[in-house]
Amino acid sequence: MKKETLFIAKIGGNIIENPEVLSQFLLDFSKIKGPKILVHGGGKSATQLAEKLAIPTEMIDGRRITTAKMLDVVVMTYAGLINTKIVAGLQKNGCNALGLSGADGNVITAVKREPLFIDYGYAGDITEINTSFLKEIVSMGMTPVVCGVTHDLEGQLLNTNADTIASQVASAMAARYEVSLFYCFELKGVLTNIQDKDSVIPHINQNKYAELLDTNAISHGMLPKLHNCFKALEQEVKTIHIANADFLTNPNILHTTLTL
Amino acid sequence: MKKETLFIAKIGGNIIENPEVLSQFLLDFSKIKGPKILVHGGGKSATQLAEKLAIPTEMIDGRRITTAKMLDVVVMTYAGLINTKIVAGLQKNGCNALGLSGADGNVITAVKREPLFIDYGYAGDITEINTSFLKEIVSMGMTPVVCGVTHDLEGQLLNTNADTIASQVASAMAARYEVSLFYCFELKGVLTNIQDKDSVIPHINQNKYAELLDTNAISHGMLPKLHNCFKALEQEVKTIHIANADFLTNPNILHTTLTL
Repeated sequence: MKKETLFIAKIGGNIIENPEVLSQFLLDFSKIKGPKILVHGGGKSATQLAEKLAIPTEMIDGRRITTAKMLDVVVMTYAGLINTKIVAGLQKNGCNALGLSGADGNVITAVKREPLFIDYGYAGDITEINTSFLKEIVSMGMTPVVCGVTHDLEGQLLNTNADTIASQVASAMAARYEVSLFYCFELKGVLTNIQDKDSVIPHINQNKYAELLDTNAISHGMLPKLHNCFKALEQEVKTIHIANADFLTNPNILHTTLTL
Repeated sequence: MKKETLFIAKIGGNIIENPEVLSQFLLDFSKIKGPKILVHGGGKSATQLAEKLAIPTEMIDGRRITTAKMLDVVVMTYAGLINTKIVAGLQKNGCNALGLSGADGNVITAVKREPLFIDYGYAGDITEINTSFLKEIVSMGMTPVVCGVTHDLEGQLLNTNADTIASQVASAMAARYEVSLFYCFELKGVLTNIQDKDSVIPHINQNKYAELLDTNAISHGMLPKLHNCFKALEQEVKTIHIANADFLTNPNILHTTLTL
């Protein structure tokens, strides 16, 4: 029996930071029929709030060092302002959204990352996704809106990368649905030349991925994203698209498709 | 057929501001069997964050003037930090909590209060409680944790008094459940003499309430709370208790019970 399709989109700062762009995205996203989940980041907003509160932001290889004070900032920004605004924006468009941190319905549990060479502070590595709960919510016709805050079941909130959440939620849901994952991005896709915004690689499979890795052809920022994507594909996620927001309404535009 | 009992508790700053007190409350609350809902405020935390961000706090008769900037502070504090921490704290105790702003699952819609003599800004007056959704969540064995943020279905978030939310959620749920509402308070109950913390009025019915109003015997801060309570009782809410947190584990301590 063919499984039902589940569409999972992940958006980041380029959409979230711009109220008009976000509003258009939420309208387009609302129109997608069938089960869907939205995952969002919000790092830039967190950094801005931290600045106003004179809390220093420290990043190592694009990963935030989450001190106790920074965790509060992250929770206020991701689970508070951004998540709640997105949910209200979707409701406006008739999309019955439900905002979730990992603690809500115990949907994402994580463990605090052990300091090895770097102490990332209150950074959480996912241990389990509660797919039964997500399926139940989706079956009620609702759209989960998941932010990058998880918990350890011991009362501790943790900061978890939203790209990773999207990939792991997609992987976990793949047993129950035919999952299509969409990383909504500021660029048109994965580029061969970062200077040329149209140098999009239309299709990357495992062989092509290995070749790109070998030739150091992928920009630094894209590496963890692609790594997450291929892990998800190995976990039976059907297709992954990396594209800008226009892809939602026009799937024929230039974009990158990833398959095994 | 006797309706199932639904326990609704409302907590405010006196519990929320003190991590140890909050932790004990969440442990005691988790132990309560059967369907339950927790409603929380967080005004003091919002005021503190506003101060750090140099956003002026203006209150008139204990009601916050919610400018656009203050609304962001309110959403970050109530829906973000406080709600998410409470949910994680309940999960720790095995209570499967689900944090909700009014936009989540469209659970509480409101309208922006029209400026009459006072412009309260983005303050929302409740228009509807989505009791079907709350019942569905509760039937799944989950505990809704509701904060004082609502929405107008047009994408606008609004600041709504948590005492009012508790009373209106209780009223709305009374058609489906036998509702017991508990206002958890820093004092032992409604006092005859604000100087004497033990001068608790054990029972207030409508006649006693009218008498207290006539004799100006109720402190200013308690008036809107009692007004909300009697409105809820008129809407078939079964019993209301005003007491401090110890009442959760010891219902025989000094407290105030309200009935019609």
